[in-house]
Amino acid sequence: MPTLVYWLDPDLLAIVTDGENSAKVLASSMALIGLFVFIFSRFFREITARIGLPLVIGDLIAGLVIGVSGLHILVPEGAQINPFLVNLIELVAPTTPEEIQAVFDGPVHLIVEQYAEFGAGLVLLSIGLESNLKQLLKVGWQSATVAVVGLTLPLVFGFLGLIYLFHLPTITALFAGGALTATGLGISAKVMQELEILKSTEGQIILGAAILDNILGLVILAILISIVETGSIDVGNVAKLILTAAIFILTAVMMNLFFGPWFITQLEKLKAPASIGMGSFILFILWSFVAGIIGLESILGAFAAGLILGGTKAREELIKSVSVLSIIFETVFLVSIGAKTDLNLVNPTVASNREGITVALFLITVAITSKIIAGFFAFSSEKINRLGIGTGMVPRGEVVLLFAGLGATTGILPPAINVAIVLMVIATTFLSPPLLRIIFTRDSQLTQP
Amino acid sequence: MPTLVYWLDPDLLAIVTDGENSAKVLASSMALIGLFVFIFSRFFREITARIGLPLVIGDLIAGLVIGVSGLHILVPEGAQINPFLVNLIELVAPTTPEEIQAVFDGPVHLIVEQYAEFGAGLVLLSIGLESNLKQLLKVGWQSATVAVVGLTLPLVFGFLGLIYLFHLPTITALFAGGALTATGLGISAKVMQELEILKSTEGQIILGAAILDNILGLVILAILISIVETGSIDVGNVAKLILTAAIFILTAVMMNLFFGPWFITQLEKLKAPASIGMGSFILFILWSFVAGIIGLESILGAFAAGLILGGTKAREELIKSVSVLSIIFETVFLVSIGAKTDLNLVNPTVASNREGITVALFLITVAITSKIIAGFFAFSSEKINRLGIGTGMVPRGEVVLLFAGLGATTGILPPAINVAIVLMVIATTFLSPPLLRIIFTRDSQLTQP
Repeated sequence: MPTLVYWLDPDLLAIVTDGENSAKVLASSMALIGLFVFIFSRFFREITARIGLPLVIGDLIAGLVIGVSGLHILVPEGAQINPFLVNLIELVAPTTPEEIQAVFDGPVHLIVEQYAEFGAGLVLLSIGLESNLKQLLKVGWQSATVAVVGLTLPLVFGFLGLIYLFHLPTITALFAGGALTATGLGISAKVMQELEILKSTEGQIILGAAILDNILGLVILAILISIVETGSIDVGNVAKLILTAAIFILTAVMMNLFFGPWFITQLEKLKAPASIGMGSFILFILWSFVAGIIGLESILGAFAAGLILGGTKAREELIKSVSVLSIIFETVFLVSIGAKTDLNLVNPTVASNREGITVALFLITVAITSKIIAGFFAFSSEKINRLGIGTGMVPRGEVVLLFAGLGATTGILPPAINVAIVLMVIATTFLSPPLLRIIFTRDSQLTQP
Repeated sequence: MPTLVYWLDPDLLAIVTDGENSAKVLASSMALIGLFVFIFSRFFREITARIGLPLVIGDLIAGLVIGVSGLHILVPEGAQINPFLVNLIELVAPTTPEEIQAVFDGPVHLIVEQYAEFGAGLVLLSIGLESNLKQLLKVGWQSATVAVVGLTLPLVFGFLGLIYLFHLPTITALFAGGALTATGLGISAKVMQELEILKSTEGQIILGAAILDNILGLVILAILISIVETGSIDVGNVAKLILTAAIFILTAVMMNLFFGPWFITQLEKLKAPASIGMGSFILFILWSFVAGIIGLESILGAFAAGLILGGTKAREELIKSVSVLSIIFETVFLVSIGAKTDLNLVNPTVASNREGITVALFLITVAITSKIIAGFFAFSSEKINRLGIGTGMVPRGEVVLLFAGLGATTGILPPAINVAIVLMVIATTFLSPPLLRIIFTRDSQLTQP
């Protein structure tokens, strides 16, 4: 009933006569997506809370239900949106289904991605805040060992298997093997936070190893690109990447000791209210941006900002404030992961899926077993849960999708292999939370350092 | 140095090879705008805090400095952005100035507007939470009198003055007069909250009157549109608008009494954490959306949601949570008002500005005096600060800009008159906070009911 709305809503009318209906369509689209995301998240979080599963699983399922595998409310660019949603939006803004689809493919898509990235950043910010730097450095060598083993094993096993079992070209096998390396930092950190593993020695080892393997994963990607483009490894570029990453981390560590406490003391002297909160938020944006400039994932910058502020007296207050923001944005991050997951890819009755599914089963096996084996390389004189450490690093995420994206567009990864990598990400993401829950509940005596 | 970045940043590379650089450009643009908005806001808030001015003024000035009157960092659609910002973005993403300008005109513009609207919604949500419904209803008749007088006087004086002093056509004078009617609810409420006037009888009268005159302002707009389009008043549509608004408000009042407490009790029974916060947030989105559907400003929906939740035991907790979100989004709302303010329009050395400036001076005089006179119509047996009540309603905002936008595109308002209306909005917005501060500090004994 566009006409009624047109008359009832002068705001709309003003926009329509401005020839700019899309602002109204966008606002109502975002409101509706928000309602669906938050209501379904609440519903499935409640179920997971009651049956004792991690809440992350609730959000992932909520995403499956409203996403591209389900109701088509929150869909990737280009996917058809639910006609029911179109009807709802037309209640508020006189428009056409085509225009709504265009708004979803354009701004809605970009805004949801932005929110999700902000949510992932908040996860890493709060992990940084909750981390104890001394403790993290204390387990540094253990983390490094786990990270290196956890990178090497899947790369080697993946590479060899794809060559000898599936007869893929060398460069394709290298790329697909590389895609198995880096832990999904955002989701892994979130699950550990929720299960309260983070403050244990195990949690700190996982966290340190995940941060390192994310950075090393990017290095591997740079090396592979170098090989593809020039046929050889460009040592200069690789060294540059490693060097900037090392400087970045060292700076954060130094800033934790000196800059952080000084910064908070300065903010305390300010007369305007909420200066500590806003000053910290500015630091968070700045570090995320700087991480992007020097070629790292921006969530590593968010983690560094958390680390810097985590050694200050404002820590508890900041953790509380971040948790309020997280109620909204973390939910968007987690639900949107589920929403992107296309279950149609695992439908075995579709013939074209079968090759991908076979390779996927192999990749999933390698991805899980190699990280679990890596966990046992966490040397320690104390009794620690090595199975738990490996399991904590099973999820794959952000960096892997860089491999997949790059491999697909350069043609290095054929469609079936690309689908297999995406399926591997989905499977490891969904399997890890319940596995961790089981392992750490059984062994409820976590090692507190 | 795009090449360096290209090599250092595999994330970017993946996107580039995806043929989709705009996501990266958007993310870095938003990060940079965030840094400018928040750093400048902090700087000017600090100054205003130290010299005892309302913080709102600090944000408005920050907006002037980074907006279309200043550095051109945060600009309206189509305005040229600062080349320095372009250079910064090119550090992260290999792109062209043209592409960056397009991203700013498109998604950046839409996202900032969305954030600003979310910020305005949060202001009204927290005002609703802090309002005492009983007290608001107690001063209902006083509010209604102030609202009606405060609408009638500027409409009549504006109309007559524009006809007899400036010889404008009847319909133009009606439109421009109508633009003087509605109080800027967002900014007015925010200033009162900051000066802690809100809980006094004066604050409640201002709030009630501002809500009513916003609704009545939309009714006047509907009537004027009706006259323009059909030459007569469409009684059916006007009645429909008044009726839906009345039902909307009555429903909120009823829900404050019955639904709110029941809703919170239900949320308390849920096992998933943060259910009260998220449940309330869902209610907030829902009511903002419903307000849009029935033709009201969405911030009225936000206020209603606050009112519904304000009578519950979760009130204090929710006020705290909203204040955390506000640190970010309210700042965007206030700074973006300043950023849109084009001071070039008041440059008297530009000949084409003069007609607008003359009319503006007249409109500003009418806008301020008529609301101040309206304040003296707040009948009360107690001693109340009637001058303060009128001053609290001086700022004009959202609804006025609907008149201006509609008047401009239909050609009813010639450019000079439109500029005059925009100048009136700017002047009343900037003058009201310091005036209120002076009036209520002098009369520091506010009437506590």
